[in-house]
Amino acid sequence: MRALIKHHAGTELQYTERPKPVPGPRDVLIRVRKVGICGTDRHIWEWDHWAANRIPVGIITGHEFVGIIEQVGSAVTRYKPGLRVSAEGHISPGVGYNARTGNGHIAKDMVILGVDRDGCFADYVCVPEENVWPVHPSIPDKVAAVLDPIGNAVHTVMTAGVSAKTVLITGVGIIGLMAVTVARAAGASRIFVTDVDPRRLALAKKLGAVAAYHAVNDKGWIKDVKEATRGDGPDVLLEMSGSPSGIKDGFTALRFGGTAAMLGTPAKPLESFDFASHVIFKGATVHGINGRRMFETWYQMEDLLLSGRLELDDIITHELAFEDFRKGFEAMIRGDGIKVVLNLG
Amino acid sequence: MRALIKHHAGTELQYTERPKPVPGPRDVLIRVRKVGICGTDRHIWEWDHWAANRIPVGIITGHEFVGIIEQVGSAVTRYKPGLRVSAEGHISPGVGYNARTGNGHIAKDMVILGVDRDGCFADYVCVPEENVWPVHPSIPDKVAAVLDPIGNAVHTVMTAGVSAKTVLITGVGIIGLMAVTVARAAGASRIFVTDVDPRRLALAKKLGAVAAYHAVNDKGWIKDVKEATRGDGPDVLLEMSGSPSGIKDGFTALRFGGTAAMLGTPAKPLESFDFASHVIFKGATVHGINGRRMFETWYQMEDLLLSGRLELDDIITHELAFEDFRKGFEAMIRGDGIKVVLNLG
Amino acid sequence: MRALIKHHAGTELQYTERPKPVPGPRDVLIRVRKVGICGTDRHIWEWDHWAANRIPVGIITGHEFVGIIEQVGSAVTRYKPGLRVSAEGHISPGVGYNARTGNGHIAKDMVILGVDRDGCFADYVCVPEENVWPVHPSIPDKVAAVLDPIGNAVHTVMTAGVSAKTVLITGVGIIGLMAVTVARAAGASRIFVTDVDPRRLALAKKLGAVAAYHAVNDKGWIKDVKEATRGDGPDVLLEMSGSPSGIKDGFTALRFGGTAAMLGTPAKPLESFDFASHVIFKGATVHGINGRRMFETWYQMEDLLLSGRLELDDIITHELAFEDFRKGFEAMIRGDGIKVVLNLG
Amino acid sequence: MRALIKHHAGTELQYTERPKPVPGPRDVLIRVRKVGICGTDRHIWEWDHWAANRIPVGIITGHEFVGIIEQVGSAVTRYKPGLRVSAEGHISPGVGYNARTGNGHIAKDMVILGVDRDGCFADYVCVPEENVWPVHPSIPDKVAAVLDPIGNAVHTVMTAGVSAKTVLITGVGIIGLMAVTVARAAGASRIFVTDVDPRRLALAKKLGAVAAYHAVNDKGWIKDVKEATRGDGPDVLLEMSGSPSGIKDGFTALRFGGTAAMLGTPAKPLESFDFASHVIFKGATVHGINGRRMFETWYQMEDLLLSGRLELDDIITHELAFEDFRKGFEAMIRGDGIKVVLNLG
Repeated sequence: MRALIKHHAGTELQYTERPKPVPGPRDVLIRVRKVGICGTDRHIWEWDHWAANRIPVGIITGHEFVGIIEQVGSAVTRYKPGLRVSAEGHISPGVGYNARTGNGHIAKDMVILGVDRDGCFADYVCVPEENVWPVHPSIPDKVAAVLDPIGNAVHTVMTAGVSAKTVLITGVGIIGLMAVTVARAAGASRIFVTDVDPRRLALAKKLGAVAAYHAVNDKGWIKDVKEATRGDGPDVLLEMSGSPSGIKDGFTALRFGGTAAMLGTPAKPLESFDFASHVIFKGATVHGINGRRMFETWYQMEDLLLSGRLELDDIITHELAFEDFRKGFEAMIRGDGIKVVLNLG
Repeated sequence: MRALIKHHAGTELQYTERPKPVPGPRDVLIRVRKVGICGTDRHIWEWDHWAANRIPVGIITGHEFVGIIEQVGSAVTRYKPGLRVSAEGHISPGVGYNARTGNGHIAKDMVILGVDRDGCFADYVCVPEENVWPVHPSIPDKVAAVLDPIGNAVHTVMTAGVSAKTVLITGVGIIGLMAVTVARAAGASRIFVTDVDPRRLALAKKLGAVAAYHAVNDKGWIKDVKEATRGDGPDVLLEMSGSPSGIKDGFTALRFGGTAAMLGTPAKPLESFDFASHVIFKGATVHGINGRRMFETWYQMEDLLLSGRLELDDIITHELAFEDFRKGFEAMIRGDGIKVVLNLG
Repeated sequence: MRALIKHHAGTELQYTERPKPVPGPRDVLIRVRKVGICGTDRHIWEWDHWAANRIPVGIITGHEFVGIIEQVGSAVTRYKPGLRVSAEGHISPGVGYNARTGNGHIAKDMVILGVDRDGCFADYVCVPEENVWPVHPSIPDKVAAVLDPIGNAVHTVMTAGVSAKTVLITGVGIIGLMAVTVARAAGASRIFVTDVDPRRLALAKKLGAVAAYHAVNDKGWIKDVKEATRGDGPDVLLEMSGSPSGIKDGFTALRFGGTAAMLGTPAKPLESFDFASHVIFKGATVHGINGRRMFETWYQMEDLLLSGRLELDDIITHELAFEDFRKGFEAMIRGDGIKVVLNLG
Repeated sequence: MRALIKHHAGTELQYTERPKPVPGPRDVLIRVRKVGICGTDRHIWEWDHWAANRIPVGIITGHEFVGIIEQVGSAVTRYKPGLRVSAEGHISPGVGYNARTGNGHIAKDMVILGVDRDGCFADYVCVPEENVWPVHPSIPDKVAAVLDPIGNAVHTVMTAGVSAKTVLITGVGIIGLMAVTVARAAGASRIFVTDVDPRRLALAKKLGAVAAYHAVNDKGWIKDVKEATRGDGPDVLLEMSGSPSGIKDGFTALRFGGTAAMLGTPAKPLESFDFASHVIFKGATVHGINGRRMFETWYQMEDLLLSGRLELDDIITHELAFEDFRKGFEAMIRGDGIKVVLNLG
């Protein structure tokens, strides 16, 4: 079968042929129809410090996909061939506190599809039955291929709790833009965003933000946001930039007693963090966000998609043939590609 | 000043003159601009069993209003004359657990404006400084006059928690219709409603319900709602009918593990309630709803109003001169009036 | 192997020989060391209306046990022979909302060990790998055999939330008595109980209740409890009697804004329930309790057991040989047996 | 009247005479019986950077006390002379989001007794009626004098939620030691503590900690705590050291998906904080803690005190005459004084 692999320690991915995998007794084998390219895949492509330390050379990458169950293992009871499915990419051992309480995504010894073991950038992928997500018929393949990152946005938004609240999103990259439409659909009253890319700021407004600020050039944005929110600041911060200034500004803007959900990952430890002002005296609540809950987030996401309110068309900027994967990565690196989907046919 | 009073034990209200009240040291005197007629006022008008047992003859009725602070008591520090305000009608003694933990509306010895003491159907009304709610400039008087019942809807919706959830509303009277638009704005994914009045069912759909069923004639509605919600039933029930059949059907439809918020008040104890099937085995959570939280609900309401998503124009069916109060009550009793606002000028 | 079965439609259980079961690919075969007799087992023994309608004739009954894994199915990965384990008796299909969000106990198509399929009153029992609970070494067999009902008590207590709160428990049967010690360990400030059995009332006090009232004879108990709780009533009601009067009295005592968790199951629908006074005007929250969460409750239970604060010795009144099962059921029916454990050796 | 004032910019407090204050219309005048010396008072005594920037020269200091209402202002309705009371020291303006939703302690324009205006180190103190806390008759004066810091501990513990959870407390100074007994009473299953003072570590064990580690010398303590908590780490971190190493070690120990409540205030911004490892990837929840909720925390505290489980005798190490205040401050600075109470008679 066709596959994109990390052939050797170094940049890019290589297109190659691999044998079709054989499912274990509790696995399902899925014929892949569409895949999404994640920011993580871009790290792997660029072979940055994180990737060089984490990715085993030789694996098939990719973890966002939709496909059809082709075959099920001998002990599989829940699903049958022919079902259209996506899958949660965090594969948990099924034992231990987090694995058994809906938090398999942060379970001990958890491994990630396309990061720690062969992923979905291929004609076929195997996943444990527990990880399968049957896709609702009304959700198109293009969207079903990117449920994983939408799930990140949903987990962030739902953990913070945005219903009838004002929301500031610092950083509107892929997940940040998804978070705009998700937060709007989930009942945020007004959404403010910051970024340094004018195109993404414009798109954020189109998706429902009431104001979109250039994080550097719009000097008075924190003051403006506070004025628009009773002088207090927004109720909720969704930190999606991962940058020290995004984190600092976000906490500065957040109202006393507000809630922050942190998804953006700083590349290295912060060199200064004012815990007293930003968290303690402020009486803030801060949630670290990683992956998505298994499977509460998936149900929330399905409900949001069925509400008809998620606007994803402008976020999924590219649909390309699988063989044109290089164009996809290049579009992401250039910045005109937000979410890129590859068709395997 | 002009006033509507319960002149004697019996039906209707009487239009009369009363002296302008004098605020106590901690009260504000408010010149009333608009008032709303509540379902409670209709009970008082019709002098039903509840009203005959609760309402002191002679009082000025009414508790929904907007006006301008005219004068403040000698010990008032928080507000000044000239401010446009509404007020929370539950007046709590300020002592005791509920009064001091944001639940003054269910505090011991709490009294209600226009029910236990003189209310707002008059040119002037006095309320304690603690109860004053400054109205945001962008909220028009017509809406500001009915913040109290919107607050009931908001308290019900926010207590249940509807963000990214499917919602069934049994009974779309005044508060039920408000709950449709509030739930939609607060992030409900899909809303189903039932009632027996075709006009209100049609309006509920206009306000955002995906399906509106005649509770009696649409025999298979519970089955339909379940089919639309993974076969499980809706995540959330907002019970606003107060009728035994509405309660029974609502709990029957609710999914296992779902949440019900009960606002509709049965006129008498239920003659049968299957606690085992409807609550215990189902693992349901049930919230009794009364009034609105002081003042968390008011802030949530302001945020929802500022979101621009609440559609109240079709719910506020009548705006009449104060002197035409009789027309307002009659429109409500006939059923073509939903929310009636009276202008005091 | 030895087994207790429901041989025919009628009272009692029959001691017999059955072939040792063979685990399916995802099952584990457990050699049973000790079992507990549940109130449910007593219903099955007495063959009441519920049992006659639910229990398939011929099955091995029982669902509370501890044992040693003897053999694992071909696709089992999580556990190995030799491990000391108990198991959750609610066997969920693994698909659907509740099954995948930690609520398998109320999942659609869920079946119960010893109720819908062969249970643990035998030398061996098979359960799916997902249901296995490894028992912490510091928990003795006698306690490990009755984790299931302790789990009911823990689920009730933890769902209500008792930390730094006053608690009323109406009905101190097996689970009610366990709830006394669980609530005390979980941080309840003061516990009040009611029942009609003086022995159980005395035991409840020994386990930490500050007051124990005869529900019928102590006429003024509601007034007394209110006086002891700021005049408001207890913060939390744990309803464990399932009787109409227990429910009515419990809600009457509960403070405005309080929380009730309902575990006791009325034998038939209530013939009168004053939803307005007891739930709606009171602003109460009511939780229906069924089984225990999978597996959040089990972890909470382990933590409570490891705290050293659960006092179970007086609740486990009998330890008998398996062959003396009749003595155990008779002790329970007489009332001098609370929790009876049978040893299989 | 007698008073302790900050006479001039510099160390120590000065004993002096001041006129008895006159209550405003909404204030109560309280004759002080006992006061507690807070860590904040010690900062003021030592005139550190924070104190020099915050404390107006000339004010009477102190905010922990119990006394008797002597006189009430003309507009006071809730309390009468003769009542034994303490008071919340955060005086909120009564307007704005936090002030009106139970979070007056973090409200805009909030001022603190004995910090921003005259406090209680005097024979008389005035506080607004809203801030008065009637003391339950069963709580002795010695304890009633220090409800304020107990409230800090209660707010930290209850915000984190410790019922049936394992808890790590990094730093057992005054509030940390109180947190040990509070967490134990509130249902923590097992408590682990760290500090660098052997006397406080010993006291923490006496109060109920299962293990007490020297934060520097017990090299393997994180590993030990993890081993004792399923290999995961404690469910809850109560950070009470305010030191960079306490914060770092605490987050390192905390289990994935755990909850941290941060009360200890770092003297300056952290020079390194690994948000990714400590919060984001860990899926942690972090609560900033400041003061105590008005008045939910006070009710929780009363319930905990009435449970009879709080052990405060070893924490209140000194009771001295008011005139011996210098001895009290010196004992605190030496470290043999934990909580010092001064009697005004």
